[in-house]
Order: sequence, then structure tokens, then C-alpha cells
Amino acid sequence: MMNSLEEKSLPQKISEDIISLILEENLQPGDKLPNETILSERLNAGRSSVREAMKLLASRNIVTIRQGSGTYIASSPGMVEDPLGFTFIGNKQKLIHDLLEVRFLLEPSIAAMAATNAEEKDIKKITALCDEVEVLLNNHEDHTQKDIEFHAAIALSSKNVVVPRLIPVINSSIPLFVESTGNTLHKETIETHREIADAIAAHDPLRAQDAMYLHLVYNRKRIHLAIK
Amino acid sequence: MMNSLEEKSLPQKISEDIISLILEENLQPGDKLPNETILSERLNAGRSSVREAMKLLASRNIVTIRQGSGTYIASSPGMVEDPLGFTFIGNKQKLIHDLLEVRFLLEPSIAAMAATNAEEKDIKKITALCDEVEVLLNNHEDHTQKDIEFHAAIALSSKNVVVPRLIPVINSSIPLFVESTGNTLHKETIETHREIADAIAAHDPLRAQDAMYLHLVYNRKRIHLAIK
Repeated sequence: MMNSLEEKSLPQKISEDIISLILEENLQPGDKLPNETILSERLNAGRSSVREAMKLLASRNIVTIRQGSGTYIASSPGMVEDPLGFTFIGNKQKLIHDLLEVRFLLEPSIAAMAATNAEEKDIKKITALCDEVEVLLNNHEDHTQKDIEFHAAIALSSKNVVVPRLIPVINSSIPLFVESTGNTLHKETIETHREIADAIAAHDPLRAQDAMYLHLVYNRKRIHLAIK
Repeated sequence: MMNSLEEKSLPQKISEDIISLILEENLQPGDKLPNETILSERLNAGRSSVREAMKLLASRNIVTIRQGSGTYIASSPGMVEDPLGFTFIGNKQKLIHDLLEVRFLLEPSIAAMAATNAEEKDIKKITALCDEVEVLLNNHEDHTQKDIEFHAAIALSSKNVVVPRLIPVINSSIPLFVESTGNTLHKETIETHREIADAIAAHDPLRAQDAMYLHLVYNRKRIHLAIK
């Protein structure tokens, strides 16, 4: 975590004031923030400090600065790329192994939650993504992005507000898995994805949980073979 | 996630070059980065752009800028405060409920992993923190920080590299829980913490898992009572 002993700069302090203002005014993703002049008056700060503070907030993906248009609340405020800093874990084989261990803790239960809570529109989306991944796999095209979206759609269907924020943890691991399994899991990926999607559509939590578990088992077997 | 369609500023691009440099040179937490002059030459960029880029990296907690001394790799590079943006979830009661649901998925298994993998020094630390929380609770003092350290020490003992990076998810929830249970869980916290610590010390994974589960059950009961 941040070391609280480190002194905060003026723009850092102002960026915290702006966060308070966003929360107080209950600004939502896509909402426009007041302009620099108004903010510098309200926060009793210089315009250049406000501008610096906005750059800090943009780098934390809290706001999006659109040149010539203004500053807006980001679509998933506060969610940065690689939020847990996996980039900086040097041993990638250990990272792949340990990420899979964590996926085993989370994803089967998330699939069960999705089977319980998915609405019709969620089921349509999950099924459509399942179809798209299957087409890409059959054409031997890169399915990584659609695979990530498939797992993200399941997490959203859980209706738990924390779970979709854990998606990046899962997402960031999928390119690693695809790479380390040498893209050889075609048949098993197609079959287990389909079983997961069907179980969620049938609102059958145990079947969804088992299907996701099996999906991860296939991944673990291939990774162990690839690492050997 | 970041919208890849949004155009990256020059300092953003340079900050990515600096990340590549950190990885290539395998710089570790606490290591000093080359100074601005050297970096601007190596990256073929102006000094003011390099300075801007460093501010962005500091706001993402990748580097720490010490005035008059230089720029260093942060202690947990890339781990920011509130990495999953919980600050921006408006409905705090739903957040508490859903965080607890996720803790149920993660923490019993993490306790079991800790019981399997904890070394002597880990066990000493967990036991010492268990003692400290107990003293604070008996004296009716704030135990939040030590409670967070207790759960963090267990996560570290799992020896999974991802799990200690999920700690902030867990950590950030403890102040909420302490607040919402009105600090009334003294006896149960003391007893279940002790049982968790003893089970890890005895290298008994199932006992550790059950003890952590019971700890969370007490929390859930109290939260449900508090919310009603």
C-alpha cells in the first residue's frame, strides 16, 4: 500500500479533494466535471495545481480528459490496468501457477452465482460470446479477447459488485494461459465453455460450478504439461 | 479497463518506456532509477516529459520520488490504494455484503494454504499479531490495523504470489466490517483468531479452513443483524 509517511504533494492533496467532490455530488461514469476555473474556485487552489491533479486522476483512470471537450468520470472509475501489479512479478511460471490456484477459488463459485442470478439479457450475451469464441477457435484465429469477455460476462451476471472488479485478475491471466498452453485446448475449451453457458442459461448453479471446475482442470493439466 | 481507443499522451508513452526499462534491468523495490538527464537521453525524450512521466508512475505507486534524493522503485510496485476502485461503489451496504461473499470464497482456502506452507517465522508473526489483537480488544482499543496485519500475515504464509496482492481487497473491507458490526464481536474475534493461528501453527489445513469459515460466519451474522 501507499506509505502514509511519504509527504503528499499539493496536486495529490487536490486530487483527493476532487475525489471527495465526485463522491459528494454522486457523479457517475460519463458525467462531466466542472471546468478548471470553477474547480479552482471551489477548491481554493490555483488552476495549474488543479490541472496537475486532473492528470494524476487520469493516470488512476478515475477521470478521462478529452482534449477540447472537458474532463469526464471514467467508465470504471479507479480501475487501472493491472491493478495488482502482476507486471512486476518476475517469475512468470510461478505467477501462472498461482493465478490458476486463485481462479480455482473464485471462478466455480462465480459461475454458480451467475446461474442463480443471470437475467435473460445476461444469458443472451454469454451465449453469444460462447458462439464467437467457438467460431474463432474453429478458424484458428486469436480468441483471447473474446475469451476474456466471456468470463467477464459471467462475472457481471453474478450480480455481486466486487466480482466484476476482480475480473482484471482473471482477465490478465488468460493471455498467459493461452500462451503457455500453446493454444492447444481447442476442443476442451469449446466443450467446457458451452457446458458453462448452457448451465447458466438453465439456472443450474451446481452444473455451472462443475463445468467451470472442469474448464480449469483442463487448463491446469495443459499448463503442467507445458511447464514440464 | 483503460479504453485503448483513448489517445495516449506523450508522458503516458514515456511512462510505459520507463516500465519496460525497469523490467529489462530487473530493478527491485528500493532500487534507484537513473536520473532525469540519463533517462531523457536513453529514451530520446525531453526532460520535462520524463518528469511528467515520473509523476504518473508515482501516482500509480510504481516509483517513489524523494525530493533532493532521487526516484526509487516503490516497495510494492504497481499496488495502489484501493486498486479495485471500491471508493466509487455508492451502495456501501451492498459492498459490505458482496465483499463478505468474496471473503468466503477466498479466505478459508487461504488459511488452509497457510497451514500447509507456513514457515516457523510466519507462525511466530501470526501468533504475535493474534496476541496483539487480543490485547487491544480486551482494552477496548481500535484493533483494525492489527486485524488487517493478521489477515495479511496469513495471506503471505500461503506462499502464493497472487494471494498477498488480493489482501487489499480483504483489508479494505475490514474497517467497513468493524464499523458495521459496531465493534461487538470481541469474544468471537478473539476465539476464532486464536483457533486460526493455532491450526496454522499445527500445520492442520482443514482445521485452519474451518476456523476461518467460522470467523466469517460470525461476521456475517453480526452484519445481518446490524443491517436489519
